[in-house]
Amino acid sequence: MFDEIDTLGVNTLRTLSIDMINKAKSGHPGLPMGAAPMAYALWTKHLKVNPATSKKWINRDRFVLSAGHGSALLYSLLHCSGYNVSMDDLKQFRQWGSKTPGHPEVGWTDGVEATTGPLGQGFAMAVGMAMTETHLSALYNREKYPIIDHFTYLICGDGDLMEGVSQEAASLAGHLKLGKLIALYDSNDISLDGPTSESFTENVGKRFEADGWQYILVNDGNDLEAISDAIIKAKIESTKPTLIEVKTIIGFGAPNSGTNEVHGAPIGLKAAKIAKDAYDWKYSDFTVPSDVSERFKETIQVQGAKNEQKWNKMFEEYSLAYPKLSNELKTTFSNILPNDWEKLLPVYELGESKASRVSSKEVIQTLSSEIPGFWGGSADLSSSNNTKIINAYEYNSEHYEGRNIWFGVREFAMGAIMNGILLHGGTRIYGGTFFVFTDYLRPAIRLASLQSLPAIYVLTHDSVAVGEDGPTHEPIEQLASLRCIPNLHVIRPADGNETRAAWKIAISSHTTPTALVLSRQNLPVLPGTKEKADDFVKKGAYILSAQKGEIPSGIIIATGSEVSLALEVQKLLYEKGEDVSVVSMPSFDLFELQSDKYKNSVFPVAIQKRLAIEAASPYGWDKYIGQNGKSITIDQFGKSAPGGVVLNKFGFTIENIILNYNSL
Amino acid sequence: MFDEIDTLGVNTLRTLSIDMINKAKSGHPGLPMGAAPMAYALWTKHLKVNPATSKKWINRDRFVLSAGHGSALLYSLLHCSGYNVSMDDLKQFRQWGSKTPGHPEVGWTDGVEATTGPLGQGFAMAVGMAMTETHLSALYNREKYPIIDHFTYLICGDGDLMEGVSQEAASLAGHLKLGKLIALYDSNDISLDGPTSESFTENVGKRFEADGWQYILVNDGNDLEAISDAIIKAKIESTKPTLIEVKTIIGFGAPNSGTNEVHGAPIGLKAAKIAKDAYDWKYSDFTVPSDVSERFKETIQVQGAKNEQKWNKMFEEYSLAYPKLSNELKTTFSNILPNDWEKLLPVYELGESKASRVSSKEVIQTLSSEIPGFWGGSADLSSSNNTKIINAYEYNSEHYEGRNIWFGVREFAMGAIMNGILLHGGTRIYGGTFFVFTDYLRPAIRLASLQSLPAIYVLTHDSVAVGEDGPTHEPIEQLASLRCIPNLHVIRPADGNETRAAWKIAISSHTTPTALVLSRQNLPVLPGTKEKADDFVKKGAYILSAQKGEIPSGIIIATGSEVSLALEVQKLLYEKGEDVSVVSMPSFDLFELQSDKYKNSVFPVAIQKRLAIEAASPYGWDKYIGQNGKSITIDQFGKSAPGGVVLNKFGFTIENIILNYNSL
Repeated sequence: MFDEIDTLGVNTLRTLSIDMINKAKSGHPGLPMGAAPMAYALWTKHLKVNPATSKKWINRDRFVLSAGHGSALLYSLLHCSGYNVSMDDLKQFRQWGSKTPGHPEVGWTDGVEATTGPLGQGFAMAVGMAMTETHLSALYNREKYPIIDHFTYLICGDGDLMEGVSQEAASLAGHLKLGKLIALYDSNDISLDGPTSESFTENVGKRFEADGWQYILVNDGNDLEAISDAIIKAKIESTKPTLIEVKTIIGFGAPNSGTNEVHGAPIGLKAAKIAKDAYDWKYSDFTVPSDVSERFKETIQVQGAKNEQKWNKMFEEYSLAYPKLSNELKTTFSNILPNDWEKLLPVYELGESKASRVSSKEVIQTLSSEIPGFWGGSADLSSSNNTKIINAYEYNSEHYEGRNIWFGVREFAMGAIMNGILLHGGTRIYGGTFFVFTDYLRPAIRLASLQSLPAIYVLTHDSVAVGEDGPTHEPIEQLASLRCIPNLHVIRPADGNETRAAWKIAISSHTTPTALVLSRQNLPVLPGTKEKADDFVKKGAYILSAQKGEIPSGIIIATGSEVSLALEVQKLLYEKGEDVSVVSMPSFDLFELQSDKYKNSVFPVAIQKRLAIEAASPYGWDKYIGQNGKSITIDQFGKSAPGGVVLNKFGFTIENIILNYNSL
Repeated sequence: MFDEIDTLGVNTLRTLSIDMINKAKSGHPGLPMGAAPMAYALWTKHLKVNPATSKKWINRDRFVLSAGHGSALLYSLLHCSGYNVSMDDLKQFRQWGSKTPGHPEVGWTDGVEATTGPLGQGFAMAVGMAMTETHLSALYNREKYPIIDHFTYLICGDGDLMEGVSQEAASLAGHLKLGKLIALYDSNDISLDGPTSESFTENVGKRFEADGWQYILVNDGNDLEAISDAIIKAKIESTKPTLIEVKTIIGFGAPNSGTNEVHGAPIGLKAAKIAKDAYDWKYSDFTVPSDVSERFKETIQVQGAKNEQKWNKMFEEYSLAYPKLSNELKTTFSNILPNDWEKLLPVYELGESKASRVSSKEVIQTLSSEIPGFWGGSADLSSSNNTKIINAYEYNSEHYEGRNIWFGVREFAMGAIMNGILLHGGTRIYGGTFFVFTDYLRPAIRLASLQSLPAIYVLTHDSVAVGEDGPTHEPIEQLASLRCIPNLHVIRPADGNETRAAWKIAISSHTTPTALVLSRQNLPVLPGTKEKADDFVKKGAYILSAQKGEIPSGIIIATGSEVSLALEVQKLLYEKGEDVSVVSMPSFDLFELQSDKYKNSVFPVAIQKRLAIEAASPYGWDKYIGQNGKSITIDQFGKSAPGGVVLNKFGFTIENIILNYNSL
């Protein structure tokens, strides 16, 4: 099936990668040189994509290079396949502004499906893509119309498989019987520091079988036929994901091949010559031989265009037969919300009192009935996070149409899988856990922010008010530690109306993830939020209760559960002659996006008597309270006791707040 | 072997747990009721501890309740075994200030070996303890004197085993052939949200076998004999850790046993009655029948005292035969540094230029020769983090005396294992990774801080100066996100001398972990650090270069690689008539510990013209620059390009700094 042009094709990928890395004087040649055959076999014989339309074709196969440090291989593939990655782009590898940054970046380089590099996460993102495929196909496919019906492929390395997040994701993928997920494992027995025999001697195949995967071993990583046969076998197995372990030699052809020397540094010109001689390479640097070019064209571009045309034709017929479904699918892939989606959202009245996690649950019910593709779950805390969609199946292999995902106690995989789900497109996803455990999924939150993915995190039990579970379960530094992540909305609503408004921001977002920080305990509906929340939560901070006179004598700023305390204090202070305004500040980051004029209207420079109240770390509050202000916050870990007791002991009492205000 | 008193003992653990949780109106009864038999069998027949001396006996067996939500079981065990946990303490379960907080807290409750609750980490900490046992026994045991020779036991649940961190740790434990590590898996097929069949269907036994473990199944979790036999088999297998899967019924005896209803909420008085009837329990609430009390005394206290006395006798003889070793062991367990340990640390002279990761490497070499028990490693980045001890073996099953640990690409497990190593005692541990990947181990850093463990994190590649690897590898928010964790030193030294001083703080710390934030690129030795670093880095911030006149016209504050820029700017500004002081601020947290007088001497209130320079998020800087100050920082993700280019583009140039200063 494969011929000498294919061998030349493999070596083209290798030599392009070598040349890119040598020219940049930076990069990771080991993987591209070793894994080029598996990438070549996959792309030219199996991967159904159309470079001409790239991501516009929603039913293309997905490909993730989980071992993102092998980016040179991916860029070489993209270039040869006819994506918008030119030879000049390859020559600009790892330079400022180039299309070929050090690690693949989605949204920046044509054909890149995921930002990878932080190991293990690419694997988990591919699991998310494969899950989405099962979900959308269950929702939208009809007899004769397999509209969503594609494979998700990934290439991973030893490092990926050592990471816990890939293990979590593998366990879930096996459980979910993701038959269209195919992982090619570049098994070269070498990691950055040396041979894997020093740290990684588990039986990977048996482990994946234990996880419910099909396992196939290809002993010779240069055997295109064997690799392709394994992929065929993987495609046939429809009820299990497949791991194909391909034994390769890192840096194949280089003098130091088979060692960690070739992992992460350019091999240099001399070694490049030796490697190219070993490949019997007759061409100059940065060359794609015309036969190879032609082969890629035939196999990827021409075949890809045919595949897409065939699909387009089917989709046209489908649109006639099922116009509603087809419209819905187009809409959801465009991330467009239906008309009036917000009309039925709950509105809360004075006198009601509900935990914001309960308000969130009510919002979720409405959104689930209004917004196609809206689904989510929890890392085994759905009953605490209130993330369950009541009128929907559990998502599992019997019910891929189900909208309630059981991520299991796998917070990090949940975060990375959510990213994969959003990268695939066609749905909106939320995931829940206890706020304190955002630490577990933090690397995935960072990748959501970096990839501009509108993930929604439902983070309940947001302060020491958690109470009895004690310091391991009580967030302190989590608010500050999320607020400093670029491109992340962090919103801590004060009551049901602010919770609704926060959800609206989250679901309307196209390029920014949102962390919803919600209470375990009941929060009274506050005067003014019914009218103001929708307009002002999106501004980050607003005067919820103005002073009575023209100018406030001071400002009390609070977030979440502490806003109601601030309002009580305001009343008492007024009786004592202090006419303060109360600012509800659900989101630092949204506030920072406002005009100076607006900012100054909330925090007038002239009013320096400022007190912040937040049951969390003081870190970051100085910006708003200034050098003369104070904050009632918590600069130590929490304690185990009933929530009210803990709050009292940490000074969240009216008396203590007034005392602090008066000391300003 | 077991009789009806033992059955009564099991039921005592159950009923105490039920009563505690009912009284507290909060807690997790499911695990204690299901897992009481395995805990009972382990503690009364196998665990070698002496409650009378508790942690003073360094060779006691270690026990970790990884599933920390089952704390009521642990407290019941501690009470019955004669630890300093009274019946009154049990009655104060989960109340403010009590010895029985919601999750076990080490250092707070007698007999608790680790703070657990965040799932999976207890498992990994136990791996760290078992590693330390192998290391110390290789270093200190001599013929006839098995001074360090104990088992490490843990009880974990389904949730623990779903977490990636336990999978990482299990893989490493198998690789390292930790034959004295024995995990009892409370396998009850239920997690918080419902049956594990919804999310966790992998073959756990096969997975652990693939990881190089012995796997034993006990089908009846109430069969004390079978459990004990399995533990015997586990103890005999000396070259593999053992997982004993014990099938149990969650909430055994309760009406809703076998469901998630009994997982995390009190069962109430009615169900307690039913359960107690099922146990044939004849006693009132909070009772330890005298037979049971006697049995615990015989098996744990009397036997434990005997075991320790035997060991004490051996240690006395050992001390005579090997006085140096015995002294060293005592010293290292007391965390006392040898005399003159700091004498040979490197001192750097003006004119030298080295990356702080290289200075750190040099410090590590000195410390490794001066400080017994000093060991460490990296998550597969030792060649980049420069963490290798040159004159030492790799730590592995052939060389447990080795001091270089290969954690593999398992950052989170590394962090949790480091905690376990420190909890065990007898060594000092450091671990390295890229600074950006602290996100991966963050939950373990939090647990180090919470447990007051002096872990040392060697975090290199500390800014966008990383360059070509791009945004996935360039820290931005990591400094701020660590600075807000309570009880954590975060130190970003400016040159070799500050790096030495930072390491001194880290290694002298007894109760606080330290994050050393180090550069990839060379940093020139700065004028003044040779003289000042040792005295002033510990103050967090200091005037490295004062203004020439009496009062500065402004203050430039910088950290790490940006301090040298600040000094250059200072010179140029002086030529232009601006006489500024330059403050090097390696650590916010250390600065916050200083007196107001000292703080004001560094940042005089009168000087409000302040400029901060740090190639990281601005979040948190306002505290020091005030509302009139500015910061040259980075409020977005990084970019892929050579490091110098990236720094320039983000404004870290003399021109831009001067421009910003002049705009103040």
